[in-house]
Amino acid sequence: MRDVYVSGVGMTKFGRQPDRSLRDLSEDSVGTAMKDAGVLASDIQTIFFGNAIAGLMTGQEMVRGQSALRGLGVLGVPVINVENACASASTAFNLAYQAVASGSVDVALAVGSEKMSHPDKNRAKEALSTACDLEELAEVEARMGAEAGGERSFFMDLYASTARNFMEKSGATAEDFGRVAVKNRFHGSLNPHAQFAGAVTLEEVMGSRMIVDPLTLFMCSAIGDGSAAVVLTAGDRTPTDRPRVRVAATVMRSGLGKVGLEPHEMAGRRAALAAYEISGYGPNDFHVVECHDAAAPAELVLYEELMLCEEGEGAALLRSGATSLGGRMPVNTSGGLLAKGHPVGASGCAQIVELSDQLWGRAGARQVEGARVALAENGGGWIGSDSAAVVVTVLERQ
Amino acid sequence: MRDVYVSGVGMTKFGRQPDRSLRDLSEDSVGTAMKDAGVLASDIQTIFFGNAIAGLMTGQEMVRGQSALRGLGVLGVPVINVENACASASTAFNLAYQAVASGSVDVALAVGSEKMSHPDKNRAKEALSTACDLEELAEVEARMGAEAGGERSFFMDLYASTARNFMEKSGATAEDFGRVAVKNRFHGSLNPHAQFAGAVTLEEVMGSRMIVDPLTLFMCSAIGDGSAAVVLTAGDRTPTDRPRVRVAATVMRSGLGKVGLEPHEMAGRRAALAAYEISGYGPNDFHVVECHDAAAPAELVLYEELMLCEEGEGAALLRSGATSLGGRMPVNTSGGLLAKGHPVGASGCAQIVELSDQLWGRAGARQVEGARVALAENGGGWIGSDSAAVVVTVLERQ
Repeated sequence: MRDVYVSGVGMTKFGRQPDRSLRDLSEDSVGTAMKDAGVLASDIQTIFFGNAIAGLMTGQEMVRGQSALRGLGVLGVPVINVENACASASTAFNLAYQAVASGSVDVALAVGSEKMSHPDKNRAKEALSTACDLEELAEVEARMGAEAGGERSFFMDLYASTARNFMEKSGATAEDFGRVAVKNRFHGSLNPHAQFAGAVTLEEVMGSRMIVDPLTLFMCSAIGDGSAAVVLTAGDRTPTDRPRVRVAATVMRSGLGKVGLEPHEMAGRRAALAAYEISGYGPNDFHVVECHDAAAPAELVLYEELMLCEEGEGAALLRSGATSLGGRMPVNTSGGLLAKGHPVGASGCAQIVELSDQLWGRAGARQVEGARVALAENGGGWIGSDSAAVVVTVLERQ
Repeated sequence: MRDVYVSGVGMTKFGRQPDRSLRDLSEDSVGTAMKDAGVLASDIQTIFFGNAIAGLMTGQEMVRGQSALRGLGVLGVPVINVENACASASTAFNLAYQAVASGSVDVALAVGSEKMSHPDKNRAKEALSTACDLEELAEVEARMGAEAGGERSFFMDLYASTARNFMEKSGATAEDFGRVAVKNRFHGSLNPHAQFAGAVTLEEVMGSRMIVDPLTLFMCSAIGDGSAAVVLTAGDRTPTDRPRVRVAATVMRSGLGKVGLEPHEMAGRRAALAAYEISGYGPNDFHVVECHDAAAPAELVLYEELMLCEEGEGAALLRSGATSLGGRMPVNTSGGLLAKGHPVGASGCAQIVELSDQLWGRAGARQVEGARVALAENGGGWIGSDSAAVVVTVLERQ
């Protein structure tokens, strides 16, 4: 396997954009990424298109990528439509990496696009509940102490249950989750692509509407539309106007589909361990991290799952300021899913956009000075008692 | 890239099986393929799961593979859900090949599963119309002289339009299309997995209900349920109880998304030319062929597109008997999509099942004696005026 580089990235603004179609959003992000990489449509040799819920949101159940990209002149080459719930775009990125690493192509395109806003305001919530095996849905909801319907969504019920367990085990408080939201909303306020423009106070987070105890509105990612794209290339096709960003590792794992897993059996932990081994980098080496904070407590759980701190120390790591801009290892400088937004099938590529910009030194007001090694974690779906798919990626500036 | 072998195959019976779930069907085909390959669940290192329309048929929009396979003990490794309309399973096969060829894994699983029968008998037809860019659907229908709704389906309208053009250009007759159905129904009558058990006469085909002129009922593939699975391995993991079946080439191409394409611009032609170059085999070398006869005229069009005969000679090739069992190059010995059945997201892997059985000499009453080189072509979706995705694969017995 040969070295693979991120050579160009692009993303739309995230957020409710009811007038923009999946095609419009995709053409925007892909056009930007191609220009950034200095490649023409005819240079692209394979395309992986990630999307999670267009079948239920727009009716476009099939050939989503061909439909979204047909105006760009890139068709003709393989177009592979991939889905892994909220990890759809990182799945596309992972496969695009493999296509270049194996030597089968020199230039690959990974895209993630999602359209979630809809005149029927419950449509996205209903679609998202299919990220769990439908045969298992009622059982999972019962196990989580959740009730279907109402204002609550399946995933926020899951995250609330996880949050309650985490509080019991680690002594973290609801205010700690609030602090995650404050941090990421502040980071997002520095990102022009973010869904939410302004910073918020802890009082505002704690005082926002209760969704599912202990999650308030500002602790939950919102419905939004967007697209993100990444051009990956072999070494001789990388731009020469900036440092090279190498994919040091990208590893996908699925959940085991069982209940009552030990920490070492979780997909995120397994993917991280493999990515650390392949890349030669470990938890102390990362200068900037993007992780899947679809709800605020998830970020603290992930600090531990990714071994960025010891078990039970997630809240302490947050409180220390280490994961805030200016800290030792800022997490979700983009604003994360909480502030940048979470058009589900686009998020995995948007993480790579942020980290590449950080490594290239072009992250503007949220730049992490001297960032050289970066970590991304993107999880999707639910199977048994874990994510259905997790992709962990390590990027390195050369 | 190293050599990759088909080491085990499995499929369910195809046809209407209202009581069987996607999970039940998938466990059946995958279990058979694993046993055939002599691999355990723990041996499988990556999984590509192809499905086209479960989002609209069963509601399982996301994590289809994790949901369908969770009872088999294979989860934990990467599970990638792929979709390319009727070419979903060959897309899974193509990617599984690449995973092994690149050396990143030694054992990969490709699965295609589809559930099309539904209490609402129009559901599958409606779902299938989303294999075209929905923004383009009305325009395509108008161009094809088609009308939406009624008993006619989008794809049969497309195939009827193609059939009329083909008749005008080549002098083929409706009876020629009837002869394709007679041939494939006879082949299917020898295949215990086929949806339709009995042979039919030309009179029966021509006298069956008219769907869209010139297509009668027996010239159209039917709604059905089924699953097919293939285990691909590196050389040292192939079974030793039979000849080795090597994947000599597998090539995917997407349609260009334009109208008025020349023959050399068609995805099928481009994929075939690349597969012939990579494999070193050409149209005169194939002892047995499976191609995408979703409607009878498509088989004759494909004879020409795959260069199995000269332009305009498709009907003559059929009439010569060369493509019937006992002929020089039998086509669709499984019964093809017309007789074996066409649970859309399963068909690409089912073609590999048939060809592998032929090369291993275990195709029973439909065995092609001495078959050593085989060709599969699987097309899916519609973009512009061509298939959205085509995969062409060459297999070789060693």
